[in-house]
Amino acid sequence: MSRYLNDKYMGLEEYVPGEQPKDMKYVKLNTNESPFPPSEGVVEAINADNAMLLKLYPDPDCAELREKIANLFGYKKENVFVSNGSDDILNFSFMAFCSEGSHAVVFPDISYGFYKVYAELYGVDYTQIPLKEDFSIDPEDYIGIGKNIVIANPNAPTGLALSRDTVERIVNSNPDNVVVIDEAYVDFGAESCVGLVNKYDNLLVVRTFSKSYSLAGARLGFAIGSAGLIADLNKIKYSTNPYNINRLSMIAGCRAIDENRYYMNNCKLIARTRARVTEELREMGFEVLDSCSNFIFARSPEISGEELYLELKSRGVLVRHFGAERIKEFNRITIGTDDEMNVFLRTTRDILGK
Amino acid sequence: MSRYLNDKYMGLEEYVPGEQPKDMKYVKLNTNESPFPPSEGVVEAINADNAMLLKLYPDPDCAELREKIANLFGYKKENVFVSNGSDDILNFSFMAFCSEGSHAVVFPDISYGFYKVYAELYGVDYTQIPLKEDFSIDPEDYIGIGKNIVIANPNAPTGLALSRDTVERIVNSNPDNVVVIDEAYVDFGAESCVGLVNKYDNLLVVRTFSKSYSLAGARLGFAIGSAGLIADLNKIKYSTNPYNINRLSMIAGCRAIDENRYYMNNCKLIARTRARVTEELREMGFEVLDSCSNFIFARSPEISGEELYLELKSRGVLVRHFGAERIKEFNRITIGTDDEMNVFLRTTRDILGK
Repeated sequence: MSRYLNDKYMGLEEYVPGEQPKDMKYVKLNTNESPFPPSEGVVEAINADNAMLLKLYPDPDCAELREKIANLFGYKKENVFVSNGSDDILNFSFMAFCSEGSHAVVFPDISYGFYKVYAELYGVDYTQIPLKEDFSIDPEDYIGIGKNIVIANPNAPTGLALSRDTVERIVNSNPDNVVVIDEAYVDFGAESCVGLVNKYDNLLVVRTFSKSYSLAGARLGFAIGSAGLIADLNKIKYSTNPYNINRLSMIAGCRAIDENRYYMNNCKLIARTRARVTEELREMGFEVLDSCSNFIFARSPEISGEELYLELKSRGVLVRHFGAERIKEFNRITIGTDDEMNVFLRTTRDILGK
Repeated sequence: MSRYLNDKYMGLEEYVPGEQPKDMKYVKLNTNESPFPPSEGVVEAINADNAMLLKLYPDPDCAELREKIANLFGYKKENVFVSNGSDDILNFSFMAFCSEGSHAVVFPDISYGFYKVYAELYGVDYTQIPLKEDFSIDPEDYIGIGKNIVIANPNAPTGLALSRDTVERIVNSNPDNVVVIDEAYVDFGAESCVGLVNKYDNLLVVRTFSKSYSLAGARLGFAIGSAGLIADLNKIKYSTNPYNINRLSMIAGCRAIDENRYYMNNCKLIARTRARVTEELREMGFEVLDSCSNFIFARSPEISGEELYLELKSRGVLVRHFGAERIKEFNRITIGTDDEMNVFLRTTRDILGK
C-alpha cells in the first residue's frame, strides 16, 4: 500500500479468490468451474477471423448479446444488462443502489464473501443477517425489512435454495428497495426468479456464464431487471468503462445462448453426479447440505475442515475451505467429472482410513 | 433511471463513446483504432484449444502478462498493473487516490472526456486547467500545484505532447501527490515517461493495447508505477472484480508483447501517413495541430467543425466532432490506412469544392 491511497480504504479487506497453485497438477474442485468444455459453436467462433477484428472496439451497447439473452427469457433488450462477469454487476449494484438509512443493505452472514467487500468499499451501511442453525435463510428476516437486499439463490457456499414463491414474498414486501437475487448457481437445480422481473420493478436477477455455461475464462455476466434498474447499471457502466466486454467474450456469449440446450443438459449431468457424491459422503459419515448448485458443502465429525482440506491438497485434490467460525468445519467441493469425483472420494476415504 | 438510484448520481453525465452506426459501411476514422490487424502470434493464439480452456477462470494475478510487460520496459512484475482497458485503470486511479483538499485532482480543460466523469462519479474535487491559446499544456500550471494530476500525453484530442523533461519537472515538484500520465497514444511519436518510474514513486504511467497494439476489441490496458501504487490499484481490483481480464485477452496481450517490433513498425507507418495527411490538409487551408498520436485535430476557416463532420458522415466518412466551445470548430480524424485517408482527403476536397 502506498501513502497516496485514500484513507477510507486503509482498513478494506479485499476479496480472496480461490487459490490457483501452479506447483503441481491438481484435481481442481475449488472454484466451481464447469467440468464440461464450451459448446461447439463457441469453440468454432474463437478463430482467426474474429481475432483479426480485435483491432476494432466492441459494441459498447452489446446489442446482439442482450437481444439473445432477452429472447431466451422472454424479455426485451432494455431488461438485460451484460458486464465483465457477475462480480462486475454486483459491484455496480452496490454502487448504484446502496448507501445508508433506507438505502442500507442486508445479506446473510454466510454467503458470497464479496458482498461485504463491496459494502465496505463504498462505505455502505450493511447488516449481515445470520442464517438459521441449519444454514438455511429464514425468509421472515427479510420480509418488509425496508432495506436493500442481496441474496445468493442458491446460496454459496451452502448450496441451499429458497423457492421462487419465498423470494417473491421478500421482493413484494420491500417495494421501496432493490432486491438483488444472485443466481450464479441457479441452473443446477433451484427455481429462477427471472420470471418475476415483469411483476416487480425492484427485482434484479444476476446471472453468470462462468458456471453453467462453461465460460469462467471469458468473464461474462448478465442481469435481468426492470428497464429502470438496467438503465441505472448502464449509467454506472458508461461512467466507468463503457467497452467493458471484449469482442471474443461477446461472441462466445452469443453462441452459448444459441446452444443453451447443451449447457442445460450439462447441468443435469452435474446434478446427477452431485447426488451420487452426496450419498457416498453421507455413507462415510459426512453431513452434506442439500445442494442445488454445482458444489456441495460438507463436514465430517471425524476430521476438522481445515485438516481435510490440507490432507486433500497434499494428495493433489483442491477444495475450498473458509475460515469463518460458523463454517470452518466444512469444505466446499465443486462437482467435477465423475472421474474427478471418484478421485476425490477415494482420496477422502484414504484420509479417513475407510 | 429508476427511483432506486443513489441520489448522488442524479446529475452524473456519463461518457459518450464514439458512435458506431450500423446504417451503412463507413470509412471509420472516429475512434482511433489501428488500421493494422493484430500480429500473427495473436491471431494464431485465438484458436479452438484456447477456447476449450474458457471453462476455467483466468489467472487473477495475470502473472505471465505482467512479467512480459515488466521485461519489455525493464521493470519488475510488482511495477505492472493490468486491467480491462486503460479506462478501467483510470477509473481505479480516481477511486484510489483522489478525494478533496490536497487529494483533489487537476487536469486540462480540453483532454480525454472521461477524467471529468470519473471525478464526478466519485465526488472528487476537481479543477480543469485551461490549455493555452495554442491548445498546448502550460507546464507551469502544474509545477508544485500540490494536487493529484492527470495528463494525457500526447493529449487528446489535440495530439500535442509534452517532453519527458517537462513531465519530470511536474512529477518532481509534486512529491505528495500522484501524477497519472495517460500514454494511450505515446507510441505514435511522443516521449514516454515509463523510464521515470524508478525515480518517482508518485508517477503512474497508463498505457493501452487498444491503439498501437491493434487490440481495441480485446480490452487490455496496463500501468507502470512504483510497487506501492500498483499494490493500491490491485487492492481496488481485488475489491471489485479480481478476474477482470479474460483468458483470451490475456493470451493476446502476451503474444503482442512478444511481437512488439511489428507494432512499433506500424506506429512508424501511421506517423508517415499522418505527416502526409497533415500536409495535404494544410494545403487545403486547414489549421492542423502538430499531432504525436494516431489522429489529427484540424479546423478549416471555410466550414464549421460540425458541418464538416456531418457532410463527411453523409458521404460515408466518420470522424469525431466534440461540441465543447473551445474546440467545436475542430474535428478529430483517426489516421487509417493510406487508402482510407485518400478517401477522407478526396471527400473533404469535394465538400470544400476544391
